[in-house]
Amino acid sequence: MFNRILVPFDGSVGGEQALIKAVELAKVTGAEIQVLTVYRHHSMLEASFSMVRASDPGNMDDAMRSHAREVAEHAKKLAKEHGAETVRAFVKTGQPARTIVRFANEHECDLIVLGARGMGSVEGYLLGSVSHKVTGLSRVPVLVV
Amino acid sequence: MFNRILVPFDGSVGGEQALIKAVELAKVTGAEIQVLTVYRHHSMLEASFSMVRASDPGNMDDAMRSHAREVAEHAKKLAKEHGAETVRAFVKTGQPARTIVRFANEHECDLIVLGARGMGSVEGYLLGSVSHKVTGLSRVPVLVV
Repeated sequence: MFNRILVPFDGSVGGEQALIKAVELAKVTGAEIQVLTVYRHHSMLEASFSMVRASDPGNMDDAMRSHAREVAEHAKKLAKEHGAETVRAFVKTGQPARTIVRFANEHECDLIVLGARGMGSVEGYLLGSVSHKVTGLSRVPVLVV
Repeated sequence: MFNRILVPFDGSVGGEQALIKAVELAKVTGAEIQVLTVYRHHSMLEASFSMVRASDPGNMDDAMRSHAREVAEHAKKLAKEHGAETVRAFVKTGQPARTIVRFANEHECDLIVLGARGMGSVEGYLLGSVSHKVTGLSRVPVLVV
């Protein structure tokens, strides 16, 4: 029923829970898993407030991309450990929700699985803003874990 | 991986799509399906604007409940037609999102599947308000179809 499951992954606990649920679904449906880590290009102003300290400001984007790659590879390893057969990891830059939905369309994913929180949300009642936007924008089913 | 899937159902096209997806999931996981139709007690003011015309205002709630029961039974029939093994249909009154989440907890459902639209939402970008609230309130995974 699912052939290709997209798991947007930001390294949060919620993201890991979503990934593990996605692997369970992949195992019962035979789907492959595509992990996507989205990073935003930080302006210098944003960079001055972020935890990333680049000695060379020109390498800021490289540092962000490199970190995103590590996060995506961690997810791939985790998925494999949980028994996923086929896992591919991708990194993209852009506005998170739109980038995720565009990726799902371009890669013909038929399910998106993501954490309810993480990815810039607040604790408690409100659904994470990225989760909410993806669920609203996506034309394929979205499983919020 | 899922034992009991809750499908809140309001009779909308989105609700039917969600139900069919839930049946597919039930078939690969062996889960049972519980359909829930939630109706709201209409005040007389609301009733005067609704499509339901009760000759006896005192029977307003009965009429709402009866209609909800028909909607839930329709969903049960549809699920069976799509090959679901075990389907039970329920009717509750209350605030939709909170009633759905409370039901899922009380019945130990481990997945909620619902339509992105329908249940009082607007077309387009925004996720249906009920779908959004359920996804935010629920402690179990929510699949928005």
